[in-house]
Amino acid sequence: MPNLWITIPDSSLSDEQTKRDKSIKIAQFARACSIFRTKRVYIYHDALSQFEKDDLDLLKTILRYLDTPQYLRKILFPMMHQLQYAGILHPIKAPHHRVLEDIKKAKAGDVRTGVIVKVKGQLFVEVGLGSLVPFAGEGLEGKRVNVKLTSSYPNLKAIQATDEDILDYWGYEVKEVPSLSKLLASVEKTAIIITSRKGRYFKNIETGLAEHTKNVQNILVVFGAPKHGVHEILAKEGASVRPYEYVVNMFPNQGTETVRLEEAVLGTLAILNSTLYS
Amino acid sequence: MPNLWITIPDSSLSDEQTKRDKSIKIAQFARACSIFRTKRVYIYHDALSQFEKDDLDLLKTILRYLDTPQYLRKILFPMMHQLQYAGILHPIKAPHHRVLEDIKKAKAGDVRTGVIVKVKGQLFVEVGLGSLVPFAGEGLEGKRVNVKLTSSYPNLKAIQATDEDILDYWGYEVKEVPSLSKLLASVEKTAIIITSRKGRYFKNIETGLAEHTKNVQNILVVFGAPKHGVHEILAKEGASVRPYEYVVNMFPNQGTETVRLEEAVLGTLAILNSTLYS
Repeated sequence: MPNLWITIPDSSLSDEQTKRDKSIKIAQFARACSIFRTKRVYIYHDALSQFEKDDLDLLKTILRYLDTPQYLRKILFPMMHQLQYAGILHPIKAPHHRVLEDIKKAKAGDVRTGVIVKVKGQLFVEVGLGSLVPFAGEGLEGKRVNVKLTSSYPNLKAIQATDEDILDYWGYEVKEVPSLSKLLASVEKTAIIITSRKGRYFKNIETGLAEHTKNVQNILVVFGAPKHGVHEILAKEGASVRPYEYVVNMFPNQGTETVRLEEAVLGTLAILNSTLYS
Repeated sequence: MPNLWITIPDSSLSDEQTKRDKSIKIAQFARACSIFRTKRVYIYHDALSQFEKDDLDLLKTILRYLDTPQYLRKILFPMMHQLQYAGILHPIKAPHHRVLEDIKKAKAGDVRTGVIVKVKGQLFVEVGLGSLVPFAGEGLEGKRVNVKLTSSYPNLKAIQATDEDILDYWGYEVKEVPSLSKLLASVEKTAIIITSRKGRYFKNIETGLAEHTKNVQNILVVFGAPKHGVHEILAKEGASVRPYEYVVNMFPNQGTETVRLEEAVLGTLAILNSTLYS
C-alpha cells in the first residue's frame, strides 16, 4: 500500500467549545491516523470558517505530542498550556512507542526514535534506554530523529535510520500548509481522494482506485471543515474539485444530519484500509 | 439492505475511569449506530470482565436518551444521575428528532415519535407540536410509540404507525440479553458477523457476505469487550465461534496495539455500510 497521507483544516476544532473537548477530538484524529498507519497529516488553512486563534497550535501540538514516544515527551514538550488535558487522552501505542527497556538487551539493528543532545562537545541520542547512546552524525542537535543501533550493549552506537531500516509503522509527521488547492497541485505520484457528501459512492470508484493506487507512491485523503465542505473551501481559493477523479461520499445514506469530522476520518480510513491493504 | 443490529457487552465501559468519559464513549456508540441506521443494540453480559455495577444502567440510559427526540426527554427521563453529562454529548440529529413544529403545519400522514398520556380518561399523544393530539388506540399509556397523523390541523388525530409508514431511519431500540451465545442461537434469518482480530480479512468474505445478505432480514454485528475478545467470551459460556461463517478482522495491519471498542464500532459499520448499501 502507498504512503497514506491525510489533510484536515485548521478549523477542525471550530465545533468544540472547551479546550478539554478540543483535546479529546484531536486525540481521536491521532488514534484514527495511527490505527491506519497514516504517515503525514497536512493541516491546511480554511479561509471560510471562524475559529479560535489558538486552535491551530493546539491541533499541531497535541497531534505531535501523542505521536511522540513517552520517554521523549519531557525533552520535546516542556510545560505547555496546550497539553493541559494530555493526561486524559487515550494513548496511541504504536510500534515506535517503546517502553523504557533494559539497556543490556539493546542490540545492533534496533531502531528507536530519539532526540539528539550534545554533552561536552559530543553528540548523543536519548532513546529511552536509561543512558544516552553515542551518535555518529551531525547537525541534528535537539531534533527528533529515528536512529539505528550499529553495535550491541555495552558498546552501543547509533546512526540515523533510513526508511529501509524501519519495517513497522513509525508514526506520522504534521505539516502546515497555507492553501488546500496549492497542496493538491503540488503533490506528485499521489492519488488524491476528496471526501464530500456530494461525491460518488466509494463502491463505484473502488476498483478504479485500487488499480490506480498500484502506480502511485502516496494516497492523500482530503477532509472538509466542520462547517464547510471541500467544494466550498476550494471555491474560496478560486479552485474547484473538478480536476480530481475521486470525489467520494464514504457514508452513503447516512442516518444523521451530519457526520462529524473525527467520525469521517476514522470511517474513511477504515474503508480505505479494508479495500487497499493486502 | 437488511435491518442492521449490533451487540456490545455490558463491560463496554470497563476501560474508562470517570462518568464523564463513560458518557462520552456511550455517545460515540450512539452516533455510530445512528449514522449507519442501526435498528437494534443488544447489550450482552460479559462474564469475564470486571466493571462497575452502574455501568450497564449508564449504558442503557444514555443510549436510549440520545435516541429520544428532544421534546420527549423531559417526560421519559426524569432527573437521573446517569444523565449528569448529557448536556455535553454530541446530539444525533436523526430524522425522528423533529424540532418543535408549528401545529398548523401538521398534516395527515406525518409520522412522529410520541408518548401516550391519559387526560381525564382520554388518551392523547405528546408529539412535540405544542398541544397533545387525540390518540386512537389503547393500552400504551406512558409508552414511547411512533404515531401517524390521520387528519390534518385543526382536527388532528393519531394512530400507532406501522413499519410501512416509516420511510426514514427512525432510531434504534436497546435490548439487554443475559448470554451472547444464546442471543446468537436465537436470531433467525440473520447474518451474524463476529468481529475479531483473529478473523479473516473483510475483503476475503465481502463477496460471499454481500450475496448472503440478500436473503436475510437482519445483520447482527458482534463486538467483543475492551479486555476480552468474542472467542474468549463465547468460550466462557461453553460456546465457540466455530459455527459462524463470518469471523472477521475489519482492521488488517492495524498500526496501534489495540483498536478501541468505540473505534471498532464506527469503523466496522462504515465498512459494512459502504459495501452493503446500494
